[in-house]
Amino acid sequence: MPFLVVNFKTYKQATGQQAVKLAKICEKVAKKTKVHVIIAVQNVDLFRVSSEVSIPVYAEHIDPVSYGANTGKDLPEALVENGAAGVLINHSEDRAELAQIEDDIKRAKGVGLMTIVCAPTSESSESIAVFAPDFIAVEPPELIGGDVSVSKAKPELIAKTVKLVHKVNKEVPVLCGAGIKDHDDVKIAIKLGCEGILVASGVTKAEDPEKALLDLIKGMAKPKTVKRSKR
Amino acid sequence: MPFLVVNFKTYKQATGQQAVKLAKICEKVAKKTKVHVIIAVQNVDLFRVSSEVSIPVYAEHIDPVSYGANTGKDLPEALVENGAAGVLINHSEDRAELAQIEDDIKRAKGVGLMTIVCAPTSESSESIAVFAPDFIAVEPPELIGGDVSVSKAKPELIAKTVKLVHKVNKEVPVLCGAGIKDHDDVKIAIKLGCEGILVASGVTKAEDPEKALLDLIKGMAKPKTVKRSKR
Amino acid sequence: MPFLVVNFKTYKQATGQQAVKLAKICEKVAKKTKVHVIIAVQNVDLFRVSSEVSIPVYAEHIDPVSYGANTGKDLPEALVENGAAGVLINHSEDRAELAQIEDDIKRAKGVGLMTIVCAPTSESSESIAVFAPDFIAVEPPELIGGDVSVSKAKPELIAKTVKLVHKVNKEVPVLCGAGIKDHDDVKIAIKLGCEGILVASGVTKAEDPEKALLDLIKGMAKPKTVKRSKR
Amino acid sequence: MPFLVVNFKTYKQATGQQAVKLAKICEKVAKKTKVHVIIAVQNVDLFRVSSEVSIPVYAEHIDPVSYGANTGKDLPEALVENGAAGVLINHSEDRAELAQIEDDIKRAKGVGLMTIVCAPTSESSESIAVFAPDFIAVEPPELIGGDVSVSKAKPELIAKTVKLVHKVNKEVPVLCGAGIKDHDDVKIAIKLGCEGILVASGVTKAEDPEKALLDLIKGMAKPKTVKRSKR
Repeated sequence: MPFLVVNFKTYKQATGQQAVKLAKICEKVAKKTKVHVIIAVQNVDLFRVSSEVSIPVYAEHIDPVSYGANTGKDLPEALVENGAAGVLINHSEDRAELAQIEDDIKRAKGVGLMTIVCAPTSESSESIAVFAPDFIAVEPPELIGGDVSVSKAKPELIAKTVKLVHKVNKEVPVLCGAGIKDHDDVKIAIKLGCEGILVASGVTKAEDPEKALLDLIKGMAKPKTVKRSKR
Repeated sequence: MPFLVVNFKTYKQATGQQAVKLAKICEKVAKKTKVHVIIAVQNVDLFRVSSEVSIPVYAEHIDPVSYGANTGKDLPEALVENGAAGVLINHSEDRAELAQIEDDIKRAKGVGLMTIVCAPTSESSESIAVFAPDFIAVEPPELIGGDVSVSKAKPELIAKTVKLVHKVNKEVPVLCGAGIKDHDDVKIAIKLGCEGILVASGVTKAEDPEKALLDLIKGMAKPKTVKRSKR
Repeated sequence: MPFLVVNFKTYKQATGQQAVKLAKICEKVAKKTKVHVIIAVQNVDLFRVSSEVSIPVYAEHIDPVSYGANTGKDLPEALVENGAAGVLINHSEDRAELAQIEDDIKRAKGVGLMTIVCAPTSESSESIAVFAPDFIAVEPPELIGGDVSVSKAKPELIAKTVKLVHKVNKEVPVLCGAGIKDHDDVKIAIKLGCEGILVASGVTKAEDPEKALLDLIKGMAKPKTVKRSKR
Repeated sequence: MPFLVVNFKTYKQATGQQAVKLAKICEKVAKKTKVHVIIAVQNVDLFRVSSEVSIPVYAEHIDPVSYGANTGKDLPEALVENGAAGVLINHSEDRAELAQIEDDIKRAKGVGLMTIVCAPTSESSESIAVFAPDFIAVEPPELIGGDVSVSKAKPELIAKTVKLVHKVNKEVPVLCGAGIKDHDDVKIAIKLGCEGILVASGVTKAEDPEKALLDLIKGMAKPKTVKRSKR
């Protein structure tokens, strides 16, 4: 069954108590549809959101620091203790140095956090596959938050990314994002080899987020009975 | 009555549930001594800590972003909603661009957060005073976490900072920090014109933090009856 | 006599051999009009440009590092050895941390480089005045490269900046920039207390840069006989 | 014939006129030994150094910007016009974001600059190989500038890097660096599959740089007659 990752970013409708409300809608949809819905929230909202829902809640950022003198950073251990199940890395709004991506993934794995590493291009997706993250999400920055989906504007980029990533590591599922609005966008992405999608404004700013989620999920393939191999 | 700011940083003894425990010790000491004890915690720990104590809990970092697409950032509004009463800005472990310091202070004031802006030197303290933060904390980076206190190593820096800051804005209280270990260090700082101190490892890594806090407070002046003017 | 600073940025017409050509035009205008024309060029162009003209050539960026292992940085000593007479600091396209601005100015002074520190607002200009740079240039970022000049769009910002900077340090001349296009813009700026202007595209992208420079200079006050006090 | 890359960094003995002197020594050794000696100098020194020697002179840093408003940056086109033949990317003292590394390489290739991309680990070397730079240089940061060479401290890291890089792209030569001091260090590196080395203080701070270079070259394999395939 595919993955649907909702990035709450810093949208008003996805902050603080509103984040809890939206998280509960995501949880409800997950239960109803059996789709793996994952949400990523502002680090500062992790505790309050993760306390209220049972779906996986990811942090939006990780600092690969260790216990000690690091004013202003959030420890990976603190993310876990506050309920994070995983973390977004290298989002185009939060780009990381190559060496830090490697550190981020190591630290995340070390404390038991799942990792979704974002990449702007097929090649950078392949490059990231080397570090064996749990997911790679390809998102052309120029389409993020826009009206045209990556599925329709750049289907060949999705296909190429899946191919290149799997050349390096067959076990890493590829997600795609940027401008994804409806079930048709999702259907194309899945058909091209993605195992899920990453959305933000399409859900957080929707008048009726539940309806928006259900519509996206309509584009996902029927559950297969084939067992996924372990990573 | 002076201020005692405890910066939890990312110390093990000051993270997650341990942060709550240490916060309660700080609260207990505050109640007992009537000293204004303020604690600064990892952003991700804000909600859990602020839910459990009544002393002011500050964030260690602020991002001057607004509602929208800012993956990986914590909104000022989200800091407030998760219980922050204020925020540390420009700590030497978390240096900010000059233009960002101005934005940070504006955004913080806009959402009702108090601001403690750190500075490495007397001149940069004076420079920051222009933006009228609620506190300025001068900390020579080379003494942070060390064995010699700023009070003993550089008393003239403290005196000069107080003078320069008050030349710009008489209303801004000056704190000092770096290597502060005992009541003697505090006494000197207060005598030189500081209205409080900023400590970290001296308390967070103390075998008995309550005892460490009480010892520091012994160095603080008796409460005056003079009313502070409003800022 | 006022100062006219031309920031070459990375404009095509102001790079490499084209930079030399434009520098010679600036030199010609300086000689003809007796205006203090200063040019700032890409660091990599410093040597070739400064070898060919006698007007002051500034670097666009300084790294406050010292001799040693700093791959990718340009030493302040190397800027000097390659002909720099000064340096731009904290341009809105090259923002610096507050602590670095202090270091930049110290290092620049230590090797004999003049400093023009840019600021986006009146308050940050005042803040920078504390560090006693040789010039402060106020430039509202939103007007840089645009069609409306700071003189016409925000005259009150210029007046306020001059006042605030001189409150801290009467000796620091204030320049202004952003959108400055003709002698009228310059006249207003000078009248409001500026001792010169900072321009870029208005000259570098002009069809006839010499004509553009001469037009700007028409807006400058007649030379006074009053001697400037030393800084 | 192997490559010997000398990174001048910001060492006193490798800045300004001293850089020219050292570059001439490198050129002399290159002519005498037929080894491919490449030097990387501070961007600001590019013009003066490249004007005086015929060996390839690389920039230490590239900014992937285009013509326009980018104060403080050096254009790739300006590097070329000032004599750069190539550029160092992602040195551990000048780390770059993953997305920027991709842009850096594209921009460098677009203007005809060769690229040496540094990496701290075997995995990040493999990751970089995806972008097909002209060279990859693996350098464990903790050994840079130290007394023990990567060849002796971590031979297995060199072997693994060569293997992983060539798995992705057989055409990319691997260099290694960090602590390389004498011909013995070089011999091991070459034997493990490196096609050259990257040195800095071992040459720049040597009492007799010519002697140091000649000693390093003693560790390099005899010229083979086999023709390298084009990249």
